[in-house]
Amino acid sequence: MTDDAAQGPGFSLADVAREGLIEPSGTGQVAHDGSGRVDLSFTVHSLAEDGAEVPPAQRGVRVPPGVTVFDAASWNGIAIDSTCGGHGTCHKCRIRIDSDGPEVPITRHDVKTFSSEQLADGWRLGCLVQATRNLAVEVPPLTTRPKAATVGIGRQVILRPALQKRYVELSEATLADQRTDLVRLTDAIDDLELTADLHVLRRLSTVLREADFKVTAVILDEALVDVEPGDTTAARYAIAFDLGTTTVVGTLIDVGTGTPLAVASSLNQQQPFGGDVITRISATMMDDEALGRLQAAAGATLADLAQRVCREAGVDPAHVYEVAVAGNATMTALALGIDPEPLGVAPFVMTAAQPPSVLAGDIGLDLHPRARAFFFPALGAYVGGDIVSGMLASGMDRDKRTRLFIDVGTNCEIVLSDGETILSTAAPAGPAFEGGAIRCGMRAADGAIETIKLDAHAEGEDPAVTLGVIGDVEAKGLCGSGLVDAVAELVRVGLLDDTGRLIPEDAAKEVAPALADRLAKVGEERVFVLHRPSPTSEPAECVYLSQRDVRELQFAKAAISTGWSLLLEELGLEQRDVQQVLLAGSFGSYLSPASAVRIGLVPKVSVLRIVAAGNVAGEGAKMALLSVRERAGALALLEEVSYVELSDRADFNDTFVEQLSF
Amino acid sequence: MTDDAAQGPGFSLADVAREGLIEPSGTGQVAHDGSGRVDLSFTVHSLAEDGAEVPPAQRGVRVPPGVTVFDAASWNGIAIDSTCGGHGTCHKCRIRIDSDGPEVPITRHDVKTFSSEQLADGWRLGCLVQATRNLAVEVPPLTTRPKAATVGIGRQVILRPALQKRYVELSEATLADQRTDLVRLTDAIDDLELTADLHVLRRLSTVLREADFKVTAVILDEALVDVEPGDTTAARYAIAFDLGTTTVVGTLIDVGTGTPLAVASSLNQQQPFGGDVITRISATMMDDEALGRLQAAAGATLADLAQRVCREAGVDPAHVYEVAVAGNATMTALALGIDPEPLGVAPFVMTAAQPPSVLAGDIGLDLHPRARAFFFPALGAYVGGDIVSGMLASGMDRDKRTRLFIDVGTNCEIVLSDGETILSTAAPAGPAFEGGAIRCGMRAADGAIETIKLDAHAEGEDPAVTLGVIGDVEAKGLCGSGLVDAVAELVRVGLLDDTGRLIPEDAAKEVAPALADRLAKVGEERVFVLHRPSPTSEPAECVYLSQRDVRELQFAKAAISTGWSLLLEELGLEQRDVQQVLLAGSFGSYLSPASAVRIGLVPKVSVLRIVAAGNVAGEGAKMALLSVRERAGALALLEEVSYVELSDRADFNDTFVEQLSF
Repeated sequence: MTDDAAQGPGFSLADVAREGLIEPSGTGQVAHDGSGRVDLSFTVHSLAEDGAEVPPAQRGVRVPPGVTVFDAASWNGIAIDSTCGGHGTCHKCRIRIDSDGPEVPITRHDVKTFSSEQLADGWRLGCLVQATRNLAVEVPPLTTRPKAATVGIGRQVILRPALQKRYVELSEATLADQRTDLVRLTDAIDDLELTADLHVLRRLSTVLREADFKVTAVILDEALVDVEPGDTTAARYAIAFDLGTTTVVGTLIDVGTGTPLAVASSLNQQQPFGGDVITRISATMMDDEALGRLQAAAGATLADLAQRVCREAGVDPAHVYEVAVAGNATMTALALGIDPEPLGVAPFVMTAAQPPSVLAGDIGLDLHPRARAFFFPALGAYVGGDIVSGMLASGMDRDKRTRLFIDVGTNCEIVLSDGETILSTAAPAGPAFEGGAIRCGMRAADGAIETIKLDAHAEGEDPAVTLGVIGDVEAKGLCGSGLVDAVAELVRVGLLDDTGRLIPEDAAKEVAPALADRLAKVGEERVFVLHRPSPTSEPAECVYLSQRDVRELQFAKAAISTGWSLLLEELGLEQRDVQQVLLAGSFGSYLSPASAVRIGLVPKVSVLRIVAAGNVAGEGAKMALLSVRERAGALALLEEVSYVELSDRADFNDTFVEQLSF
Repeated sequence: MTDDAAQGPGFSLADVAREGLIEPSGTGQVAHDGSGRVDLSFTVHSLAEDGAEVPPAQRGVRVPPGVTVFDAASWNGIAIDSTCGGHGTCHKCRIRIDSDGPEVPITRHDVKTFSSEQLADGWRLGCLVQATRNLAVEVPPLTTRPKAATVGIGRQVILRPALQKRYVELSEATLADQRTDLVRLTDAIDDLELTADLHVLRRLSTVLREADFKVTAVILDEALVDVEPGDTTAARYAIAFDLGTTTVVGTLIDVGTGTPLAVASSLNQQQPFGGDVITRISATMMDDEALGRLQAAAGATLADLAQRVCREAGVDPAHVYEVAVAGNATMTALALGIDPEPLGVAPFVMTAAQPPSVLAGDIGLDLHPRARAFFFPALGAYVGGDIVSGMLASGMDRDKRTRLFIDVGTNCEIVLSDGETILSTAAPAGPAFEGGAIRCGMRAADGAIETIKLDAHAEGEDPAVTLGVIGDVEAKGLCGSGLVDAVAELVRVGLLDDTGRLIPEDAAKEVAPALADRLAKVGEERVFVLHRPSPTSEPAECVYLSQRDVRELQFAKAAISTGWSLLLEELGLEQRDVQQVLLAGSFGSYLSPASAVRIGLVPKVSVLRIVAAGNVAGEGAKMALLSVRERAGALALLEEVSYVELSDRADFNDTFVEQLSF
């Protein structure tokens, strides 16, 4: 690992954690004047195992203005003492501000915590100091060792889950001490300002007395959601859901350690209503009962996964107190039973960007009866909570590099950040990348060609076509990444021209003698044969790429590249300015970066700058469960990220046509 | 009415409103140094109907420290502009602070509202200025005329109900304006920071579109609870419940005008479980299902009343959005389904002092599906929400006189305020005042003797005994007020001695010749005959007061007078210092002040200082519905009022024995 102390200001721990993904050198540090962000320079004191002081570490952090110093540190893996999670109640997050500017305001909590000498010396509670300008911050040694987990794209997350459990042993009431049961309990947990709802109060007096006043308080943020007899602090679980249109993934985690205990995935049970969001929205428009049935199907999918992960890990579902759900705007609306119709028709309006906090039972889950479900907010009808979650996991808002985030799918979401401004948009790519509308297309399952290498001049034993097939079985079709590879390779060897036309057979024999015999016809359409089951197979019996398939891919990639082109233009940037391209989702993991660059799906940058980010939506959901700070960061994205609607732009068509060519 | 402008500082509008109840003169102004309260001196500017300025009015107000200036004004009937109800969002409650002390802090809302010149000149938002010391406050003329209602004991309440309705006509979405439906709505109501729960969001998009974006937002505090098509602003109703152990009263009010539209009362359907709280608590201890049945009975009682008042007023129950419930701690626990057992056994502990806000549906009411139920908080297991509500209605915390509040019943609640400190306690008076344990006792119903006048020396046509009988029918028994009158009159004429013993017949003939023949025996017990159905009736067939009845009353009144004696002692006061005695509840309305003084039920003060306060619990519930300020005042009582537990005091027994005599 890099020596943190050696990092200059402006380079965050999050960057360090992402080190493996950063292009080693030579990308150059783009200079930012920080006008839209503030720089915090942390001096972090710590003690060695034997209690001796060690030299302080220097760390620079760049955050949006208004973020608290505590948040800024927490987001960047710098631990500051706290038990209340930054609510201003525990008075433990002591820091010292060393500032040239005007004095940092003193709050009533500061007055309670510090002497007037300390206040004059710059001591404040970190959760109450807003970073509105550059500050130098000293962090004293921790009194307790914080736990952290690595989540997302190498993000180091300090564990501050909304879910807390506290075991307390209370004194019994007497005539001289008639405090109410609730006050007796909350007095014992005085670093939080707890509230209790009717359900807890109905059980409270009975549980306290049956358990001899030795109980475990179950807390979500500052809401007391249950009081359990005895010490149950070890059982504190949550489930992160990536609620995809096609596939749903659930991960059971222990929020006390950050450890994932079990993962399960399944097809979304809404599939019978249609494969994509538009067909499912249409279903609700044609049948009044469809919304209820789609909601039930989403609930059943989530409930099934919850049951499976709990069973696999041997966890009682009643000990799961929270779930986080990352889904696109339509999946979110359907899971919550909110009418999705306005999402499906222009002008594409959401009911609300931030779904309210609901009970897990409201979305069909049978966990703890007061378990809560957090849904990620959406930036727009087609840049949903899954993308916000992915942005969180990839630290899109906490990095000063120019980064492009692309989630390729039927609807493709694109986010561009230049370290100051973050823009997002959606591009309707259509089903090509999922194998839809492609003659030999199929999902990325066993038998799907996922990689292709062509050798135009292969001779003798050397193969002219090298296929990578999922499951190492005989090729049965072509999935999205194989499609991109096929087209990219055909362009490279010259069998496809810039306009996307397969060149005439005569010319083919010249430019690619080893491959020319694979040009054939199926019906009236020209095709390129990728796999011939037997030497005598007719072209129609083969796995092939057709001229029309190429056109489908061209439209899909043009939609996407139009999206990022216009975003780059908005920020006055060129393709070469992009320092990192994050390809999100499973498709991104299989895509060949070289092919993606070659066909123009991503900007023309070094393939080293192209990173498969994996299931970032699911990772962001885990982060939201493990840290209230990260969750606040996700909500803050609603303010930080601008949504750009492309469909009503005058320059959309011109750019699209430009982008059609390879 | 008194000329407000002529009132000196320290005399509040609330006092003026209570004028009819204040002893006209001669009580003297008790001097307070204000150590526990702060004095605000308001200069209220206003305009005449024609827009001309009129001379400003001066008003002094005394409040607990920490109350906002806005609240302090509102509580005392001084109107300051506001639409958000004091949440800091509408930026309308402009005031100017003229202070000799340190400058009043400037908040970020102040900065948004005022120029720096205005800030330097002392202008602030009144809802954000805490009165921590004496201040002079200038209030500019109102831009809208506030509505007020007279509620409680002559309290002038400025209408600021938690329930608001706002009719809005919204523009439809376009590709250039893709704001979410929720933001579109909340942008149109930007003086409030609205939140929406899942139930509203599920309906929002459909309602907006079906109603052509012309809708009425239904708001409770800052929660959006519904969006109704068209303009429904006129239909905004709430129900105030006085949930008594015996009798339950419901009042339907229009919160837009403060007008009560219908009142209904009924017996509490929990009666079959026992007449008092202890027997009902016992029922839950002996039968696991009793709590559920008691809860259902409370709900059924409330639901029946709700239905009746809505029907009587022709109001759709779906237009009732809030209810307030004032009940003792046991009634509150049972209505909410909270186990009351710890209330019934020493050390008498509540689950929580402040019940959480719940849905009206949670307590069995079938009103608007998201209607909310507010329960008054309790000060102790036996000084419940009904008393807090009564204190609110009688302004116990906003008066600098020394006042004693007594709610006489099986459990008697006593509150004493000297204008600085407020103490409360409970005294177990037993059932005597409700006619229980009294030989000829009965409830205050037709046939009950409620007033008695004796003439020891009546001659000729003059009656020796004059009875007031409820319903003007033949006397059948003796209710509580009659019992007090009977004992008081017997003491006055000398037939009862100081110890409560009926004097010997010989002596009786001397001191009360016209009454001596009414002394008789029923069995072995001496009695005084109050009503003889016919000249030949045996004593046992008559309505009489027995020697044991007198003892019962002695114990009951001693319990009560021990309570207020010890509270007076706590504050270092004598009986004569009490400037007002408020007798709450229906019993208080019928009690003869002279008799109450004579038997020592209340301190020995001029009868002019004894005021029947009526159903103050119900009045307080109305106030809580009509004003969020008043509701906050009720919650503040939890901090302001100390509960004194008498049962474990060393001096309790001695005082009790002292108080037994007349």
